Amino acid sequence: MSRPKKIPGTTVSRLSIYVRALQKLRQDGVVTTSSEKLAEQIGLTAAQIRKDLAYFGQFGVPGRGYYVENLYTELAAILGIDRRWQVALGGVGHLGYALLAYNGFKKQGFDVVVAFDKDPAKVGQTWEGVKIYDIAQAPEVLPQTEAQLGIIAVPAENAQEVCDAFVAGGLKSILSFAPERLVTPDDVTVKRVDLAMELEWLSYYATNASSRG
Amino acid sequence: MSRPKKIPGTTVSRLSIYVRALQKLRQDGVVTTSSEKLAEQIGLTAAQIRKDLAYFGQFGVPGRGYYVENLYTELAAILGIDRRWQVALGGVGHLGYALLAYNGFKKQGFDVVVAFDKDPAKVGQTWEGVKIYDIAQAPEVLPQTEAQLGIIAVPAENAQEVCDAFVAGGLKSILSFAPERLVTPDDVTVKRVDLAMELEWLSYYATNASSRG
Repeated sequence: MSRPKKIPGTTVSRLSIYVRALQKLRQDGVVTTSSEKLAEQIGLTAAQIRKDLAYFGQFGVPGRGYYVENLYTELAAILGIDRRWQVALGGVGHLGYALLAYNGFKKQGFDVVVAFDKDPAKVGQTWEGVKIYDIAQAPEVLPQTEAQLGIIAVPAENAQEVCDAFVAGGLKSILSFAPERLVTPDDVTVKRVDLAMELEWLSYYATNASSRG
Repeated sequence: MSRPKKIPGTTVSRLSIYVRALQKLRQDGVVTTSSEKLAEQIGLTAAQIRKDLAYFGQFGVPGRGYYVENLYTELAAILGIDRRWQVALGGVGHLGYALLAYNGFKKQGFDVVVAFDKDPAKVGQTWEGVKIYDIAQAPEVLPQTEAQLGIIAVPAENAQEVCDAFVAGGLKSILSFAPERLVTPDDVTVKRVDLAMELEWLSYYATNASSRG
């Protein structure tokens, strides 16, 4: 693998933004674009886009900019979304159920294939075509699936238990909706989603707008 | 207002990350930090942090770096989270209910005070202390509340209807979990949350790790 190992996490997040912008350009039948046009479309600087892409290679064509289809294909491969991923879900409460039914995952290539809960009323059931097992079974059940990614959607006080069960079942990539920092072996990647940050983005603009008006 | 009007949205998102890092340093009793230390804590470059902060003023003290408490207080004020915000919720299906019960919002100063749905079985009920109204009532009900932010948590096909009702009720800042682009007047800010992007971040690292191992 010639790819450098230390890519900033923020660059990786921006690759997803670039992929979405390119998906839209493809749908609109646009053949070429440039870092300047992409920057305007997304709300970043052209320099930032060029710097991010430079981590992964040379994508532009002198005098033409980027070919939309090529850049899309290459970035999708770098992000690993040129394939489908199977996903394990920990917790089928309200958030978990919402994620189970979330079409946005399927659209981008992520299929929830197995779910876990500790509620005896839910264990053994099949929701949205996904069988629910007891979380204690995760170490035995997960190796029988192709799941490589796990999502933790349980209250904070149960998050570490689900995380441990996922790790014992062989998962090395975990998305957590619980606010707590989770303890894992070094080879496990955990990404925490903080929905309050999205509201803070709005409160910034609301604050700025109201002080202008 | 002397603040420049054109701050990149990505800079605003990073302010939330800086605020969280500073919250943690405060909890740990750390008095001063630096752009280099913050960069290491967060996984960004020191230059990026200095550039982001420079949009808003001069925060560092020569030879000392940043005072954690001061920088936290200033960034919280810039983000508008030095106060509490009242929030309206559109849709109390699984995702909406999960958001209604989400502690992370309250912790950062966001209180859901009113909810809307179109399901007659839900309208009129009070969940988690929040009264649920028919979405058609939003234009009359919202002005009677202090809600300034709205969250859309309905299926894609209903998102525009909820958005229109929120705008008619006077909301100018809307967070949408629906994948569709929403049509709004120019003075309304809409932020869309795309949960699949979080999984893509993981798929990047999983792809990279498996090709190394």
